[in-house]
Amino acid sequence: MAELQAKTAAKEPKLVDPRDASIDPATQEMIQRAQRLQVETVFDRAMTMKPCAIGMQGICCKNCAMGPCRLPLPKGGITGEDTRKGLCGATANTICARNFIRMIAGGAAAHSDHGRSVAEVFRSVARKESHDYSIKDPIKLVDIAPYFDVATTVEVDGKTVDRDIDEIALEVAEAAYAEWGKPEGSIKYVKRAPKPLQEKWAQEGVVPRNVDREIVEIMHRTHMGVDQDYKNLMKQGTRAALADGWGGSMIATDLQDVLFGTPSPLQSEANLGVMKEDHVNIIVHGHEPVLSEMVVAACQSQEMIAYAQEKGAKGIQLSGICCTANEVLQRHGVPPAGTFLQQELAIITGACDAMVVDIQCIFQNLANVAKCFHTKLITTHPIARMEQENVIHIEFDEHHAMEDAKRIVKMAIDNFPNRSADVMIPRHKTAQIAGFGVESIRYHLGGTFRGDYYTLNDNIINGRIRGIAGVVGCNNARTKHNEEHITIIKELIKNDVIVLTTGCSAIAAGMHGLMTPGAAAVHCGPGLAEVCETVGIPPVLHLGSCVDNSRILLAATEVVRAGGLGNDISDLPAAGSAPEWMSEKAISIGHYFVASGVYTVFGYSLPLEGAPVFKDYLYKDMERMYGGMWDCEPDPVKHAHKMIAHIDKKRKELGIDKARERVLMDMADRQALGME
Amino acid sequence: MAELQAKTAAKEPKLVDPRDASIDPATQEMIQRAQRLQVETVFDRAMTMKPCAIGMQGICCKNCAMGPCRLPLPKGGITGEDTRKGLCGATANTICARNFIRMIAGGAAAHSDHGRSVAEVFRSVARKESHDYSIKDPIKLVDIAPYFDVATTVEVDGKTVDRDIDEIALEVAEAAYAEWGKPEGSIKYVKRAPKPLQEKWAQEGVVPRNVDREIVEIMHRTHMGVDQDYKNLMKQGTRAALADGWGGSMIATDLQDVLFGTPSPLQSEANLGVMKEDHVNIIVHGHEPVLSEMVVAACQSQEMIAYAQEKGAKGIQLSGICCTANEVLQRHGVPPAGTFLQQELAIITGACDAMVVDIQCIFQNLANVAKCFHTKLITTHPIARMEQENVIHIEFDEHHAMEDAKRIVKMAIDNFPNRSADVMIPRHKTAQIAGFGVESIRYHLGGTFRGDYYTLNDNIINGRIRGIAGVVGCNNARTKHNEEHITIIKELIKNDVIVLTTGCSAIAAGMHGLMTPGAAAVHCGPGLAEVCETVGIPPVLHLGSCVDNSRILLAATEVVRAGGLGNDISDLPAAGSAPEWMSEKAISIGHYFVASGVYTVFGYSLPLEGAPVFKDYLYKDMERMYGGMWDCEPDPVKHAHKMIAHIDKKRKELGIDKARERVLMDMADRQALGME
Repeated sequence: MAELQAKTAAKEPKLVDPRDASIDPATQEMIQRAQRLQVETVFDRAMTMKPCAIGMQGICCKNCAMGPCRLPLPKGGITGEDTRKGLCGATANTICARNFIRMIAGGAAAHSDHGRSVAEVFRSVARKESHDYSIKDPIKLVDIAPYFDVATTVEVDGKTVDRDIDEIALEVAEAAYAEWGKPEGSIKYVKRAPKPLQEKWAQEGVVPRNVDREIVEIMHRTHMGVDQDYKNLMKQGTRAALADGWGGSMIATDLQDVLFGTPSPLQSEANLGVMKEDHVNIIVHGHEPVLSEMVVAACQSQEMIAYAQEKGAKGIQLSGICCTANEVLQRHGVPPAGTFLQQELAIITGACDAMVVDIQCIFQNLANVAKCFHTKLITTHPIARMEQENVIHIEFDEHHAMEDAKRIVKMAIDNFPNRSADVMIPRHKTAQIAGFGVESIRYHLGGTFRGDYYTLNDNIINGRIRGIAGVVGCNNARTKHNEEHITIIKELIKNDVIVLTTGCSAIAAGMHGLMTPGAAAVHCGPGLAEVCETVGIPPVLHLGSCVDNSRILLAATEVVRAGGLGNDISDLPAAGSAPEWMSEKAISIGHYFVASGVYTVFGYSLPLEGAPVFKDYLYKDMERMYGGMWDCEPDPVKHAHKMIAHIDKKRKELGIDKARERVLMDMADRQALGME
Repeated sequence: MAELQAKTAAKEPKLVDPRDASIDPATQEMIQRAQRLQVETVFDRAMTMKPCAIGMQGICCKNCAMGPCRLPLPKGGITGEDTRKGLCGATANTICARNFIRMIAGGAAAHSDHGRSVAEVFRSVARKESHDYSIKDPIKLVDIAPYFDVATTVEVDGKTVDRDIDEIALEVAEAAYAEWGKPEGSIKYVKRAPKPLQEKWAQEGVVPRNVDREIVEIMHRTHMGVDQDYKNLMKQGTRAALADGWGGSMIATDLQDVLFGTPSPLQSEANLGVMKEDHVNIIVHGHEPVLSEMVVAACQSQEMIAYAQEKGAKGIQLSGICCTANEVLQRHGVPPAGTFLQQELAIITGACDAMVVDIQCIFQNLANVAKCFHTKLITTHPIARMEQENVIHIEFDEHHAMEDAKRIVKMAIDNFPNRSADVMIPRHKTAQIAGFGVESIRYHLGGTFRGDYYTLNDNIINGRIRGIAGVVGCNNARTKHNEEHITIIKELIKNDVIVLTTGCSAIAAGMHGLMTPGAAAVHCGPGLAEVCETVGIPPVLHLGSCVDNSRILLAATEVVRAGGLGNDISDLPAAGSAPEWMSEKAISIGHYFVASGVYTVFGYSLPLEGAPVFKDYLYKDMERMYGGMWDCEPDPVKHAHKMIAHIDKKRKELGIDKARERVLMDMADRQALGME
């Protein structure tokens, strides 16, 4: 043990070269400043701390106290029978599959718990117990009600009339909330998927029963001595991931749209340069928009603006980090100050008067960084507190939402005069269009006569658009910040693949100027450029936060429904990617895409290398069941071309590989392709 | 990485010295045989595979892909500020608490899912959809109905009459099943706890809302960047552990008693010697008695016995391993063939014609061992399969339970003629009394006039019984098989502490002869010996399986209720122990005992050593909140004396430390002690 300690104990901190850490100049500048001020950041820690090589390969089992058992690959690789086993006899496949689906459990729990929180607020609004929120999009409520078996009309004197919206809200609220723990039946949103996909799920026995049960069953099956068949373990992983994508996450997105408004395209900016030296800077960070919606409103209130001016500021500049940023961006145009890896840097500007965090992806080191500056670090969620004493906890409650929000904003304003003179906000920021969704894609790409997704499909069939890619996910301090995201996205659009993006990938695309209509002319192949210029959209569409990956599922379903591109999501010339993934949520998302028929490539490394048979099961055998499969490719150019190869394979299967010759199609051609 | 591989790669297998592996001669003999036959067992693997020292200390975080981050203690221990942190800044406390409560999540999920399974079968019986089971203990059903707010009587013509038992069953079934996912309220069984304990839980905000939600919330809170305050993390760990002990596990026990009968004391035997060379030997192994109940019935059927005789056997010998063994022992007297660590050895006898496994604590290596003999290894549960091809899966379904059971028994009988001549069943087996419970303790120790727990309390107050210990839990191949269990139990009863036991600890006590009334004279101090001899019970009472630890909670509550020993479980002269723990279930059990007011000592090692502050929180601060706290002591004699010291502390607080002088108490004495 002493030996191990000596090998892994905290060594002398090494400092990263900022140019190796990020492709973003703002980030580079701030890392430099941090090093000058001797404030440690994640980029430096990544230099000092080596990840455990065995854990990275997925073959460390710590699920019982006879271990942790580690099953490294033999030196020359596996030749002959794989005899590695843990004390109980668990094989590398069992251990790797256990770890993998526990990651799904963690990720699905995170998304779904977020959804549950939103459903709770929605229920409280529907019950008229909470007065600071209201239903901003009643049309969306009426749209989703039938999926919960809630009637939207009623017969009165033989006539069909619309039901009272409050009644609908109450019934939707109860039904939605029940999805987490109902004792019988299955997840209702499953029926939104294409029919052939629903049939595949039924055949494989992976239709989720309710959200919580599937997560709990993962924890049981991965307990010592329960499920020891990687295929059977993955089956449960699939069921839980579907309960996330087509359950918890999708309900989160829908109810957020109903409560806070369905996004539509709007202009904003991105990167640390959105902070303003002469304004009170408040940063919201995390994932749940329930509080940040109120913070937006509070920051816009005359009362708070006047108070800020009283304290010597010109106003209040609100910005965001991570998915809370994406939530307030897509609905209010609040600019993101940066991605996951920039959270410490925002404080290191010296100009952040308060950072308000909710849940997920928040560095505990924020507390240490905040201590070096005047920044108030405020935790707000009962389930996400911090150990350090300088962290302020203001527990947010939907029953007095605006009051809490104002208290927080006021605290930031009061802190404005405490700034030191040493402030440095990088000047870099970029214009972007965000706020796309299933509805706005329909509007923008739908065409005048047909509405819906016909025009998009037409352009895919005629080859102007080669295919659709979802590029999503985190940053990871083990890779160069934003490099993989941007290289992959650029390679895709250069090859006429339109990109839908969410999460930190979306923030990265915004920071690097890929989300303006003008980007099309610069970066796109001729076909995609033509489409983007014609309809006036960027080639990279910002679809929101990580729970909003459910928007990509539904957009894909709309494409299937519009016809001409097969009968299922797996028939589409489409692929998914998480270039710089880091969190368990990414694994859950990746897997619900795979199980929904999407070829999904992750960057960096997947914890599967230690169990080649299980890896093959995910990379190859999954396709037979669901049409989608996993892959991993750290090289961003190769990564993009693997996606393009899959898209071309699907074009060929659809018989539209010839269409890339750019023949203008008429109705007869479309009928010949089975589109009508 | 190559370096790490070289260090940890599979080395030349070392063989254990059987005398170092176990204190049980049957186990020693079988290890010797296994080595002679070159069949690898867990005992040998424990020699070859070293556990990861950092993982063992609880300070490896693999909850995101920037890691796994490892935070070893500095060489000279922590002097000054603890600066260790993961890439995100997570401290050792955060990482250790995350790992600890994820263990609770795994354990609570295992127990609760077991409970849910039983509740499903019970619901199907109540709905008359399943005909092979019936309600064997309607009195217990009527006893528990009020906790589920189900009326047991009804007014008819102004008179109160008993309700139809089928109606009660149906309502209890629906209400019990709803405990896993109900959208509002809290776990109903919480109200069975002593009032002051309920108040502590309410004050700390740890009353569980439903079973699944608390487990899922652990997975969310431990996700990257969510809860980073070890106290707040532990709060959720407590809530989930209580949802296990006073929820899932307690419902499992109760509904099993209703369906299969509440145990009452009966005689049996224990150890590998219960297998019979001239009989068909079937072993049931795992935890859920739903199938094994049917296997018992099938084995007893004339049809199967005749069939066995046809095949040349004298009859069918059914025996058990792990908690499935305890379930069929306590209700039918079926003898356990051994503990967790003996599962491979039962096959190595060469006389096991079929091993039938359900869920939990099953070695995947059983498949490899079975391949070396004629044994049919049969998995039966949809969530617990095995990768290896020689494993037979017969999926059990409560709707045709007896049919499945007979198919399995027939398969074993058909396999009897396939045995090789090389059979070796160790001759060791021991007589035991098992089948105790809340009800039978009341009967046996209750006294003629008073019933209930008064006499037990009297004997505690007058000092004949010094206190009560719960000794429970697993075996662990990192410790000498059964040595800690037996040394601790002997030390306790020698010091007049009565022992309640469950799980593999109970099997061990049975194997080593501590569960006969005769054991009292040999092993007990004079006070306890006198009580045991007077009422005719062993000094070590077998309370069942690991979900039956809920019986210990209820027995402790009965002791509180009987009076004279304080107002809460934490006032009792009592302590808990898991000497050779191994599974995540043990951590969940340990923690619900701590949170119910019990000083709980684990043997071997707890994964807390790497985070001294968090460890102190569990070992010291917990007591202020709940009256109970954690401890760890690998030395079995010291372990027992730590428990006895706590018992003596409580006796002193109760003012009954003088009573150990053995004064016979009359009514006035008892009143003076506040017992009346």
